[in-house]
Amino acid sequence: MHKIRSGPRAVLLLGSLLASSPALADAADSAAIREAALKDDVAWSFTEGLTTEVGPRPAGTPQEARGREWAVARLKALGFSNVRAEPYTMPVWLRGREDARIVSPFPQNLVLAALGNSGSTGEKGVEGEVVYFPSLADLEAAPDAALKGKIAFVDHGMSATQDGSSYGYFGAARRQGPSIASKKGAIAILIRSVGTDHHRVPHTGVQMWADGVEPIPAAALSVPDAEQLARIAKRGQPVRVHLTLLSKMLKDQPSGNVIAEIPGSDPAAGVVVAACHLDSWDQGTGAIDDAAGCGIAVASALQVAKAGTPRRTIRILMAGAEEVGGDGSRAYFKAHGAEKHALAIESDFGADRVWRVDFKLPKGHGALATRIKQGLAPLGVGSGEQVAGGGADIAPLVQAGVPVIDLQQDGTRYFDLHHTPDDTLDKIDPVQLRQNVAAWAVTLNLVANASETLSAN
Amino acid sequence: MHKIRSGPRAVLLLGSLLASSPALADAADSAAIREAALKDDVAWSFTEGLTTEVGPRPAGTPQEARGREWAVARLKALGFSNVRAEPYTMPVWLRGREDARIVSPFPQNLVLAALGNSGSTGEKGVEGEVVYFPSLADLEAAPDAALKGKIAFVDHGMSATQDGSSYGYFGAARRQGPSIASKKGAIAILIRSVGTDHHRVPHTGVQMWADGVEPIPAAALSVPDAEQLARIAKRGQPVRVHLTLLSKMLKDQPSGNVIAEIPGSDPAAGVVVAACHLDSWDQGTGAIDDAAGCGIAVASALQVAKAGTPRRTIRILMAGAEEVGGDGSRAYFKAHGAEKHALAIESDFGADRVWRVDFKLPKGHGALATRIKQGLAPLGVGSGEQVAGGGADIAPLVQAGVPVIDLQQDGTRYFDLHHTPDDTLDKIDPVQLRQNVAAWAVTLNLVANASETLSAN
Repeated sequence: MHKIRSGPRAVLLLGSLLASSPALADAADSAAIREAALKDDVAWSFTEGLTTEVGPRPAGTPQEARGREWAVARLKALGFSNVRAEPYTMPVWLRGREDARIVSPFPQNLVLAALGNSGSTGEKGVEGEVVYFPSLADLEAAPDAALKGKIAFVDHGMSATQDGSSYGYFGAARRQGPSIASKKGAIAILIRSVGTDHHRVPHTGVQMWADGVEPIPAAALSVPDAEQLARIAKRGQPVRVHLTLLSKMLKDQPSGNVIAEIPGSDPAAGVVVAACHLDSWDQGTGAIDDAAGCGIAVASALQVAKAGTPRRTIRILMAGAEEVGGDGSRAYFKAHGAEKHALAIESDFGADRVWRVDFKLPKGHGALATRIKQGLAPLGVGSGEQVAGGGADIAPLVQAGVPVIDLQQDGTRYFDLHHTPDDTLDKIDPVQLRQNVAAWAVTLNLVANASETLSAN
Repeated sequence: MHKIRSGPRAVLLLGSLLASSPALADAADSAAIREAALKDDVAWSFTEGLTTEVGPRPAGTPQEARGREWAVARLKALGFSNVRAEPYTMPVWLRGREDARIVSPFPQNLVLAALGNSGSTGEKGVEGEVVYFPSLADLEAAPDAALKGKIAFVDHGMSATQDGSSYGYFGAARRQGPSIASKKGAIAILIRSVGTDHHRVPHTGVQMWADGVEPIPAAALSVPDAEQLARIAKRGQPVRVHLTLLSKMLKDQPSGNVIAEIPGSDPAAGVVVAACHLDSWDQGTGAIDDAAGCGIAVASALQVAKAGTPRRTIRILMAGAEEVGGDGSRAYFKAHGAEKHALAIESDFGADRVWRVDFKLPKGHGALATRIKQGLAPLGVGSGEQVAGGGADIAPLVQAGVPVIDLQQDGTRYFDLHHTPDDTLDKIDPVQLRQNVAAWAVTLNLVANASETLSAN
């Protein structure tokens, strides 16, 4: 036998003739797991429960702590082993009241959300003339004199892509814009939301101040508000905006990861980490980002366990504080990085259908990749040419050389919702969620039971 | 000639043979007007300008006054005659700060908007247990004891319809729910937004307190928030909500209508009123409701004027205060009701394509209806069996027996946006807007130039 498991299903289903052939047995396993996973209710129930009974889960807050308690209780109830929270502490930025209005020439309110780590305006707010920049490059190219005492506005629009690849490019306005504007003497910065919708729901997100840079108030306008401000700016009259963005920083707040396991029969074979993050931004309930990812990881691990004890331990990692810099993934690596990790996989891109699988496996593991591709093909999942890279929750593991598989989710509508108040349960399509569970279950099953070493040497 | 006009276009286009036949001349006129109107830029420019340079225009506020000034200036610039604002005064309800949160069992914020004329909670807010009602009928059937000291929540969902006909039925939760809840002793009422979207943008709207009823705080939850509160309520634990809804009432504030005319050659033939409303709700910029309607009326009247002086005067009526009870339409009727009105037509259902025409014409005007149907058919406009009824801005005229035509706009997505912060310019499809202008121009042209009396006798 190429795998060690207690479950008799493959034998029962196809008889000893097929079971004696590893490849055919894997194909039969994948078919059975797909069929079962496409009827899964656990992922929905997990996603519905976490988003309803906890709601928003900002990192380092009591809401995130409630999320951990909720997840620990649910994972225990679902039969996972070694369920526990692993605490750490972290600094926390907390959003306060936010108001913005165009003072002149055309007085009206603007809808915005402060970016993570934004400076606070104080109760009196700040007011200044807006300087319009079509793109981040234009802001970078502006002389300091153009910005001193003014409010920068970067109007860089983002288009939807299936693979989400434009986020890296367009997200720079959020990640780097505030530091650039501050260095040039701006009193605040507004950016067009890094989002692809047209709703009055601004897209927040973290940004880190460059070394030595003075924090200034920094916020994202909803896309309709950014378009409105751009139309007004382009009319040529000076545009004055008043901003009130209150926020505060707290030191050493409690956060934590949640861990749960399906114990494997061969401890020496290494752990398969199935990751997601438990925290969310503060204005939505974090359904696509990332309750659904946790639901997918949990449900697919259970599907594998139902088929029998896997060779390798499957470890669910629900990271804390992903949204604000990855404190959870670093804490996990600090605590567990020395353990043998056979593979890491992460779901943090919503719950629309998996459409492509990418691999980063050690040399000589082509046959495993082929078995996985074959198991996924009936779910409409194609195979790409890209090298898998994982996401923030497993980044330190991947950086350390742990093999990784990406089950790429369709991101066409992900950035309509990402980091907005609109990230709520109703955005999850239960049918596509089940397809995710099936793709994950097929993959986890083959990886956890693979006879290959999954070691780089 | 069955019509009097200065424009030589029909003759130039089709020659004197066709021009000598009224029906063929009408067909030629309609074709030429359609062609020109489908290239119209005025409706877009008007809609873009009003929503950008004025923004939200709540009735009886300085913003609505800026809207009147803006419209008067633009209408004069476009060459209209007799352009003026006609003022009146009215009581005004003003929204203040709004916050809501579930206190227990699952603490989290809720997104809502107070309904027009809502009572104010005061700064301290109100807190109480939520009583869940699946529909307005359930609220009506509840004994007073079930509501005393509590917060009613009516979770009546609305589905999209092309003709908007479900608004009357489902809107009752907003229009009557607050008075019913107050009579039964509730301390506040929350309703599911009367809307068909799934965004965190609540749908406000006016409600009038029944005689003798004590105003209580009354607000609409966004649809995702209503679904969240319903999920929580259905889990069976007592649900407590804290509401802060600040608002105030002002007496005798200035509002007004804006009037502009394309003077006709035959004053005795009566005026054709082309109506829309200039005010909007406070949280969006009133693009679909109803800047676009005004843009359509203005642009189509200009298209008729370009073809030559019409027999009848076309009078643009941009009513004030439609959203809060129709003070503008009543003021218009008081000032002008005694004048001879040949017909009234109104655009107040967005700017998606006109798909059906309905009539309420005097007996013996079937030939005019036929000419209009023929002129509209190439635009994809069918003819319905319903009797036209107009809208709020022309309601007193229609009530008084003035003939009316409805160019029914496709409302499938109207209630995604209606009365929300999301009612912004980006929701206007320029191509469909031009189809509206074309349908209106064809209709106004045939009505304004009709040889028929358009009199009930």
